[in-house]
This record gives sequence, structure tokens and C-alpha cells, in this order.
Amino acid sequence: MVYLDAAGAEPLDPAGREAYLAALDEGWAGPDRLYREGRRARMLLDAAREAVAQEFGCRADELVFTSSGTTAVHQGVLGLARGRMRAGTTIAVGAVEHSSVLHAVDVATRRSGGRSVIVPVDGLGRVSLGALADLVDAEAGLAFAAIQSANHEVGTRQPVTQAAGLLAERGVPLLMDAAVTLGREPVPEGWAVLAGSARKWGGPTGVGVLAVRKGTRFAADWPEDERERGWAPGPVNVPAILAAATALRTRLGEAAATAERHRELTALLRARIPELVPNVEVVGDPDDRAPHILTFSCLYASGEALLLELDRLGFAVSSGSSCTASTLTPSHVLEAMGVLTQGNVRVSLPWRVTADEVEQFLAVLPGAVRVARPQQDAEAGSAPAGEDEAVAEPELEIDALGKLCPLPVIELGKRIGQVQVGGTVRVLADDPAARLDIPAWCRLTGHDYLGAAAFEGEHGIEAVPGAMAYRVRRRE
Amino acid sequence: MVYLDAAGAEPLDPAGREAYLAALDEGWAGPDRLYREGRRARMLLDAAREAVAQEFGCRADELVFTSSGTTAVHQGVLGLARGRMRAGTTIAVGAVEHSSVLHAVDVATRRSGGRSVIVPVDGLGRVSLGALADLVDAEAGLAFAAIQSANHEVGTRQPVTQAAGLLAERGVPLLMDAAVTLGREPVPEGWAVLAGSARKWGGPTGVGVLAVRKGTRFAADWPEDERERGWAPGPVNVPAILAAATALRTRLGEAAATAERHRELTALLRARIPELVPNVEVVGDPDDRAPHILTFSCLYASGEALLLELDRLGFAVSSGSSCTASTLTPSHVLEAMGVLTQGNVRVSLPWRVTADEVEQFLAVLPGAVRVARPQQDAEAGSAPAGEDEAVAEPELEIDALGKLCPLPVIELGKRIGQVQVGGTVRVLADDPAARLDIPAWCRLTGHDYLGAAAFEGEHGIEAVPGAMAYRVRRRE
Repeated sequence: MVYLDAAGAEPLDPAGREAYLAALDEGWAGPDRLYREGRRARMLLDAAREAVAQEFGCRADELVFTSSGTTAVHQGVLGLARGRMRAGTTIAVGAVEHSSVLHAVDVATRRSGGRSVIVPVDGLGRVSLGALADLVDAEAGLAFAAIQSANHEVGTRQPVTQAAGLLAERGVPLLMDAAVTLGREPVPEGWAVLAGSARKWGGPTGVGVLAVRKGTRFAADWPEDERERGWAPGPVNVPAILAAATALRTRLGEAAATAERHRELTALLRARIPELVPNVEVVGDPDDRAPHILTFSCLYASGEALLLELDRLGFAVSSGSSCTASTLTPSHVLEAMGVLTQGNVRVSLPWRVTADEVEQFLAVLPGAVRVARPQQDAEAGSAPAGEDEAVAEPELEIDALGKLCPLPVIELGKRIGQVQVGGTVRVLADDPAARLDIPAWCRLTGHDYLGAAAFEGEHGIEAVPGAMAYRVRRRE
Repeated sequence: MVYLDAAGAEPLDPAGREAYLAALDEGWAGPDRLYREGRRARMLLDAAREAVAQEFGCRADELVFTSSGTTAVHQGVLGLARGRMRAGTTIAVGAVEHSSVLHAVDVATRRSGGRSVIVPVDGLGRVSLGALADLVDAEAGLAFAAIQSANHEVGTRQPVTQAAGLLAERGVPLLMDAAVTLGREPVPEGWAVLAGSARKWGGPTGVGVLAVRKGTRFAADWPEDERERGWAPGPVNVPAILAAATALRTRLGEAAATAERHRELTALLRARIPELVPNVEVVGDPDDRAPHILTFSCLYASGEALLLELDRLGFAVSSGSSCTASTLTPSHVLEAMGVLTQGNVRVSLPWRVTADEVEQFLAVLPGAVRVARPQQDAEAGSAPAGEDEAVAEPELEIDALGKLCPLPVIELGKRIGQVQVGGTVRVLADDPAARLDIPAWCRLTGHDYLGAAAFEGEHGIEAVPGAMAYRVRRRE
């Protein structure tokens, strides 16, 4: 099995595994205990905290260990929101933040009676500093802004240090979810609250880090106890923390070399995939990005079918396509970027990936995509069927109501040749993915996207919830 | 080292350790993933959930795994409080519940604008069913009652099934923190929400269980995600959960025999300690209790000094004395029971404790207590110094303001002989432990406790915050 979903989880780093096993025997006692096992656990914990803090450029007493990166984000958001309540209850949040940030912001604003405002991103998934500046100037009471170090789905780095500078001038703290980059590259400066997850750097599941700069107003908004400054209730998992600290040290020693190797491999994928597979959109910043992530979408392909076929062939990847998520909506990251969501694949390289594994992936991908494109002829659809040109209509309507991604776009691709050059096709669809995929189809095939409007029901076709009418003009 | 603090943590059970190591290699992938590693992790997780649910007498879809027992309690309390908000915002909580329950109830009532009411306990630490019934009848809007299966500090079992019956008649659900008994004895019936911690049954740190009976109104009051029904955000720690399930199965197979063995050993401790050590109060129910816990307090002894001396001699125990806690207040459990708090020791037997280890503990205890009683002569103080009888005063005042436990009681023991039989001693003290320890001293030494009043400052002695004047009448 070739594992290419490191951004989800990686097996425990071998050095971390050794540290874990040793600590299961030596560090299992509560570090709050007075007897020697407790004191030893405390000593080991203090050393791990010191080491991790040093790597992240903060003081040991600014950093606590939580039970996961998710918890670190949740407590970070809720604690900062509560601590900054007097300054304001509006939270600015990047449009492509991790769902854990968005969920916590929802709860924080519900509790405070405040609201969140989204900082938009460009087509590469990068937040707009101009929009952030405008927003800070327009908002009298801004609690804080949440901006990640780099995006977890498309790898694009965010301009966090510039954002932090811009916010600092207005006295607004920055919360940075650095899960994608911790253990891989230097921690960007300027954060007031930092959150991350050890399992993203080869540590075990069950360890998050939350750091809060001295001087930041921060107040627990959850049941507290005496452990980890009251910021992370529950027992401190010393063995897992030691494993996390060990894995971090190992990784950082190899980080620069690994980043370079990963960058070459993802650059190779980025260059080769569009050559090997027709109608592919590779997304995210090609240069200023986390080196281990590469994401692309395949027109006309079902994301779920693609993942399952790749799995059958022995390759593990993830997807932001709607049909692979329990919510039936495409990834909010792809949505905010306005890119194609169908047939979406995220490749994220594990630490010790080989060039051979990447080559193997490239070798099987075209066949896997063919399997995941249910109607092969759809691929040819964007080229007009010559002999029908004479009978082509000036207008055409496609009723794709009730059909799920990628079917509406497949239908469009198959039938665009039935309309005259310059004529328009009206696609009726209620699948939310169509909002992104029809414009993306136009971009990829060279036709004009004219816009969309709510479809209220017409000439015997009933409206369904979320139904839209999309208009496309055929080009040559 | 003889480890007698199993109620805090135990080393991972050997079978659980094996399961853990195997699962670090086989179950590390996210169970939400479509590829085979993910599907395998999901299969392992489902099997573990099924096994644990069966042991606890609930359905697999009623049970989720959290990141700790503390988290299970917190989410249980907050989710039930929010789910039951329309029924009421008052929460009834046993006086000796674990601090995690009390902390969560504080937050729940702060969020709802409600309040908590304490169900009192008797001198053995058992909640009063009569008081609970009165409370339910008096309260129009009761959200729920929280009562543990057995007490974590003194071992006393709670009448949860009777309480649940009484509550059910009034339509009020019961939340049961069963951390002390899960994996050791059958789960009492009648709970609507059940919380527990795997590391109390020999599982690893980082796994809690939260079960919510079908039909119970329960609503997330935290940032949700799609995992574990939205009740336990963050990654699901499959390897740790497998280890927990394995440890549980191993333990339950040996539970009846182990309980019997533990019961004999704690009965031995209970009988022998008062014979070996003068002025000891053994607390908690002698019979109806968790078999592995035995708690006692030693008059005139410093809890911290006693723990450190026992540690020096190679014995690990815990204490509810104020001087061993960062809060400087004695355990709320001992306080609610109204028992002596100084020189407090909780012995909790690990699964495979030997009779020899318990005998060793009994052999060193008298010497350790002598070391922890800073002024040896205090022990003799309660016997009047015969020759001074003639010059004894009718009244005596002891200024122990600013002195910490056990000093006020030591002073009292030393000087009681200076007052006539029938005369009174007035002790001025601001240490909160004195509220419990002076009455307990009277109980243990046979003098009369006459009561206490706030000390506002008098004849040149300034009042300090929390200062009280305690009155004691000397008996023969």
C-alpha cells in the first residue's frame, strides 16, 4: 500500500514509538503526584514542554499540551474569545480555515452574542490582506483574527506574519492554526495564540499543543482543573507527550532536507498530472505552499469512485469532493477558492515517501480516473459533434435536478455540441457542487459562464430546495 | 516501590499494552477514511465499541469514546444540561462528586443562568436519599441529578439505583460518574448518562467513555464535528481505544476474584491501622464500598510530610490533606463528610497488589506517622499534665492565626491540660482545615466541641480573612 494521506495521519515516527514504549513504563504516573513515579513523570513532562516550546519559539510557561490538535484549536478560540470579550465580540476568520476553527468560532460567537466575519481568499486559497485591513478598520470591536499558517487541503501558505503586523497596529491578536507546518518548517512570527497537532508531525494521536503569548488576554470558557494552567482539563498524557516531543526533534533535524525532497516530488506531480489526465484542475499556490501537499480535481469524475479505485490499486489519498463527505457538500476550502470540486484528490506525502511511490501513483492515476468517469464519451463532449452542427439549436435546457455531482457537468459536456456556437445552455441543478463545478467546467473547456439564478419552477418542472439555473454560452 | 495509588492511575494492563502496540501498527489511520487502513481502523473501533458497550449494558450506538474520563464527565454534564434546558436549569449534585463533575456543573449553570443544589452526605460519605427526594419535590425545574457509583476518595458506594428510581418517578434523569467502579464491579442500573475513564481499569491515558441512553435529551454545548456523534470532537484514538477495550475484557474476567482479594486486604488495613497508630480516624463505609480503597487520617500529622516519608520508604499513596493540594484547602469530600483532614492518606490497591505489599505498608506506617507528627509530645497532650492541674485556668485562648494544619490542633493538644476539666479553650485560627480538624480532634480525644464563630479581632489581635474562634470544653 502506498500511503499518501499524511495530512490526515501518519504512523507514529519510529523514534517517537521508542520514546512512547519507554514512557509507558516510566512516565505513566500522574505528574501532580508527590511520590517518585509522579515526580519522574513531572520531570519528563517539563523536559518535553521545554523542548517543544523552544522549537516553537515560545517560553515553556506559554505552552500547554491538550488531548488533540482539535482541542487545542477549540480551547484557543474559546479562550481568546472570552479573554477579549471586552475588546470586542466579532471574530475575523479566514475563509479556508480548518473546520475545527470554524466550529469553535461558531460556538464562541453564540456564547458572546457576537458574530464572525469571513476574510475572503483568492483563487489560490490565500487570504486577502487588503480585505483583512478593511475589515479591521471597519470593525470597532474585533476580538481577534484566525489565520492558519498554511492550508490543510491545498497547501497554500498564508501571509500570517504580514497579517499579524497589520493586526498588531490595531491592537488585535492573531490566532494561528499551524497544524500543517509545525515540525516541517519554521513557525511564522506574530501569533498571540498558536495551535497544532502532534500527529501531523509523526507524534501519536492524543497530543495537541496550545501556546498563548504572555500578555494575551485569555480566559477559560470550559470546566477547568489544576492541570496545564487550567487550559487543558483532564489527565496529562505524559507518555504520548514524550513521544510527540521526540518525534518533533527527530523531524526538525531532517526538516529542511525533507521539505526539499517533498517539494520536488509535489512539483513533479503538479507538472505531470495535467499531461497524463485530460481535464484536470490542479489547485493551490504552485510555489508558496507547504511542500508535502498537492491537490487536483478531475472533471467528470466522481471523487468517491476515484478514491475507491485508487484504494483498490493500493493507494491511499483523501478528497474534498462532496460525495466522499457525509455532508454531501463539497469542501468549504475548494468552495471559497471557487475551483472545481469533482473528482478531487489531495495527495499529502508522508515523511519518508520515496520517489518510486510517487512514480507508481502517476502510473496508475490515468486508469483510475478513467474508471471514475462514469461516461467516457463525456470527455469528448466539449468538442462539438461536427455533423450535428446544422441541426444545432440556439438554446438548450438540461434538467439535472436531483442528479448529484459529477452528473450535471457530464450531461453538460455531452450535450454542449447540440447548441450553436454563441448559443446558450441552461442547466437546472440542485446539487450544491454544481455552483462550483459548472463555472470550473467552463474555465477548463473554454466556454463562457454567464451566471446563475434561483430556479423557481417553470413549464411543468417543479422547483426543489436549492435549485438553480446556470447559463453557459458555447464557444468554438 | 510499592504502588498504592491505583485510584489515580495504574500502569497499562499487560494485555492492553500488547493490544496497544499491535494497534499502533494496524489501527493508526483515521477511521473516517475510505481506503483500507481507514476501513480497518473503523472495523477495529466498531468492535471495541461493541465490546465495551456490552460490558456496560448499553447499545453500541449509545456509547462514544472521549479523550479522557474528565472529558466524558464534562461533555456528559454540559450535554445533559443543554438538552434538558427546557425542563429546568437546576442541577442536583452529590456533595462528594469528583471535582470534574463540580467544575462542569459550575460551567453548565453559568451558561444556562441556573444553579446547582448540593445533595448532602452522611459521615460515611453517602448521599442522603431523603434529602434528594425533598429536593426533587421542592424544585420545579430540575435538569438532572449527578451521583457517582462510588466515591473516589473514601470508596463509599452511593445508592445510585434507588436514587435513579426516585428520580425516574419525577421524570428526572441521573448522570452517573462510574469511574471508580467500571471494570471492577457490575454497572449499577438506572443511569441516563454514564461517564468513566479507561485508565482506572488498566487502560491507557487518553480514553474516556460517555454513554447516553436513547431517549435522553442531550445536546452538544461545544464545537462539534462529525466524529463520535459530535459528542467527542477531535481524532478518534483507535489504538488507545483498542487497548482500553482489551484491558477491560481482561479485568472483568478476573473482577470478582480480585474484588474479594482487595476487600480482604482493605479490611485488614481498616482493622490494623488504628491498632498500630494512635489517634487515627478511618473514614468511609466499612462494608458497602469499592473494595480497593481505604482512607484514614492521622491527628497531628502533616499530610505532605507523611506522603514524603512514605515515598522515602518506597510507598506511593495519595492524600486529601490541604497541604498536599495546590489549593491549600482540604478535600471537599472529607469536608462534606465532616471528618478529620490532617495526615490524610488514601490507599488504593492496584489490580495485582500482593498481601505482602500490604503487610509491608502496615509495617512502615507507624514510623512514617511519627516522622509526620512534628511535635511528638502533642500526642500526649490530650492527657492532662497531672501536676499542673492545681494551677489550671477556667479559660484559655490559643492564637493560631496564620498557622497551617496540623499546627492549630497540635497547639490545642499540647495546651488542653492547662485548662480545668469543664473549662473551655478558645482557638483562633484562619486555616480552613481547622473547621474540620478541631471538631474531629474533639471526637478522637473525647473533649466537647462547642462550636465556632467568625473572629472579628479583639484585645489587640487583628482579624485576618477567614479567621474563626473555635470553642472546646475539656473533659476528664
